[in-house]
Amino acid sequence: MAHPVSPLAPLAAPHLPAIDGVELAIAETGIRYKNRPDVLLAMLAPGTSVAGCFTLSKTRSAPVDWCAKNLKGGKARAVVINAGNANAFTGKAGVKTVTAVANAAAQKLKCKPAEIFQASTGVIGEPLDPAPIVNALPGLIAAARGDCWEDAARAILTTDTFAKVATAAVNHAGKTVTINGIAKGSGMIAPDMATMLVFIFTDAAIPSRDLQKMLSKSVAESFNCITVDGDTSTSDTVLLFATGKAGAAPKGFAKALSGLCLDLAQQVARDGEGAEKLIEIAITGAQSDKAAHRIAMSIANSPLVKTAIAGEDANWGRIVMAIGKAGEKAIRDKLRIRIGGIQVAKNGMRDPRYKEAEIMPHMKGREIVIEADVGVGKGKAKVWTCDLTHRYIDINGSYRS
Amino acid sequence: MAHPVSPLAPLAAPHLPAIDGVELAIAETGIRYKNRPDVLLAMLAPGTSVAGCFTLSKTRSAPVDWCAKNLKGGKARAVVINAGNANAFTGKAGVKTVTAVANAAAQKLKCKPAEIFQASTGVIGEPLDPAPIVNALPGLIAAARGDCWEDAARAILTTDTFAKVATAAVNHAGKTVTINGIAKGSGMIAPDMATMLVFIFTDAAIPSRDLQKMLSKSVAESFNCITVDGDTSTSDTVLLFATGKAGAAPKGFAKALSGLCLDLAQQVARDGEGAEKLIEIAITGAQSDKAAHRIAMSIANSPLVKTAIAGEDANWGRIVMAIGKAGEKAIRDKLRIRIGGIQVAKNGMRDPRYKEAEIMPHMKGREIVIEADVGVGKGKAKVWTCDLTHRYIDINGSYRS
Repeated sequence: MAHPVSPLAPLAAPHLPAIDGVELAIAETGIRYKNRPDVLLAMLAPGTSVAGCFTLSKTRSAPVDWCAKNLKGGKARAVVINAGNANAFTGKAGVKTVTAVANAAAQKLKCKPAEIFQASTGVIGEPLDPAPIVNALPGLIAAARGDCWEDAARAILTTDTFAKVATAAVNHAGKTVTINGIAKGSGMIAPDMATMLVFIFTDAAIPSRDLQKMLSKSVAESFNCITVDGDTSTSDTVLLFATGKAGAAPKGFAKALSGLCLDLAQQVARDGEGAEKLIEIAITGAQSDKAAHRIAMSIANSPLVKTAIAGEDANWGRIVMAIGKAGEKAIRDKLRIRIGGIQVAKNGMRDPRYKEAEIMPHMKGREIVIEADVGVGKGKAKVWTCDLTHRYIDINGSYRS
Repeated sequence: MAHPVSPLAPLAAPHLPAIDGVELAIAETGIRYKNRPDVLLAMLAPGTSVAGCFTLSKTRSAPVDWCAKNLKGGKARAVVINAGNANAFTGKAGVKTVTAVANAAAQKLKCKPAEIFQASTGVIGEPLDPAPIVNALPGLIAAARGDCWEDAARAILTTDTFAKVATAAVNHAGKTVTINGIAKGSGMIAPDMATMLVFIFTDAAIPSRDLQKMLSKSVAESFNCITVDGDTSTSDTVLLFATGKAGAAPKGFAKALSGLCLDLAQQVARDGEGAEKLIEIAITGAQSDKAAHRIAMSIANSPLVKTAIAGEDANWGRIVMAIGKAGEKAIRDKLRIRIGGIQVAKNGMRDPRYKEAEIMPHMKGREIVIEADVGVGKGKAKVWTCDLTHRYIDINGSYRS
């Protein structure tokens, strides 16, 4: 939090209303940070169902293993999150810590340890002592209330420069359900202090199996479509809890959930370490949607594309390069590229009418839009990233010192 | 060439002897650069055989298409190389340029156009006028001689900070053959001014089919094992020419060729844009050699690993992350990591005996060695990269301005 707020931060954050069945509390336990909250407890009403999506890393953290295992039960009574230590690559000690926190919370909340979900973000490879968290639990439980979502969002941040919150109300046939989400992540899909964690809560009543289907679909179109540096965390976690207090989910719930996920995902990209520009990349004409996604990610992760955009250079040759290296079919002599709505290349060469000066106002803006049609089929995809600046190197080249 | 010489440049370059059957000449044609040579002609004796390896990009350049097509003939009489314009993504105009240069050179050298190989490096998407090159040909042919390898190596540079040359003599049973190689590349496996081009010449007599086998094997273990930014050029080219003037290749030729390729490849990594440290990554214990290579490349291309090393931070948690995201099997709880020969992690957690202070002298050095055993099988691989520094962003964020 020592870094200045990203210039891409939303101008205003929405106020998040209380959600029946969810109570929040934060604490300063000094796990790594001093003088700031670093633990969040969300208590959930009995009967709350849960769904989750996790990192695909082969070296995932102890809390991720724990959550993935307990997702099968479909029920949750609390989630405990800490910032400052990821409890990743900590061997048996890591499993002991997770178990100790779950046992302590379950005893106090009179539930099964398997109903206590957990997430940790921070440094990798350092043992995480459960004692400060366990000792904080009684105070957290006593203090928990429904109207402190912004504080909750701040307690889970690491290198983030702003808190990420989103809310949606779904009205249908005279009833309303609410969805609140909080997220952290800035070296996105990246390790150490920069894992992406997302927690979404609703008062709708949705069985865990249906909840999982909706969440998996939403995550595929949102959190899996952003990248800051192409690095995948050991700890990435998205959890969705449904307390059921407002009754069955009305029509439009899935769509609202998807919109909320996309909002949070874009906020993470907007807080990419050192980001000065948000970049949207839209691919059409690929062999499949999956192929389009891979091509879009190849552009989004290319250091040469990202540094060019940082330099406000409409260097479309690098976009051609990134399309070429994606490993998916692309017909060079049918390629069409637009930047900021202006066609720069078509039929495998520079558009003769394209003048670089026309595109400069767009390149100097905060939001850059790249569109490419690769001339093969009907596959399409859209992803978001940020530029690669000196501050990324400042942040990551001196992170632990 | 405006950038200071890489601190990783070899202290001394070897002198390259003449190779019977190879004559070189350079010219200033002003394609893009002023007041420096930008075209190299290498004339080859009749009967010279040729082998080549090219970029796997789906958007490869006109000269790459040309060379790949003409490799089938197996014979070469010249190679013409220009710096400043890649003739990539130039549509039909690009094909016309390559054809014009080949026709002009073939007429003068009394050979088939298909025996004129070509390579171009520089900006993408700008048409390349063949006239300056065609007009320079008579002068180049008249001036060509055998003893100007260093000048030749300099003529093909773009953002490189030093010329890359290597030579090897193979002695066997009283006879000697020579291999000379020159290379350029610094934003390696990257586009625009930073394509990798390599030209190797020998006086050994080797049929093109055998030559290709040897080259493909050598490239797989050298040029395909280095990365600066993970970006793949539209124009990467390695060509190997054998004039046959010194008779059949003696025993040990293939090994010498591999050594020379590895030398040139490491020189390219040492000239990575903004490089301050050369990084060697050795993976063992993978499911296969291919799996080991993918894991090694995942570490080598991780911006978080590369910025940590730039910051002289032995941040092994990021190495764990990069292993985890590689998509290859790794047993977390058997992982073993060494940096500079010092064991930092074993059995999926920090080695209790590891003290960060012990590793600091290594982190402050110019050459960083990372070893990881992923605990699955017997696959192994070794790759080389460089750190990610502010100068990479300086070079690539303002390249065309």
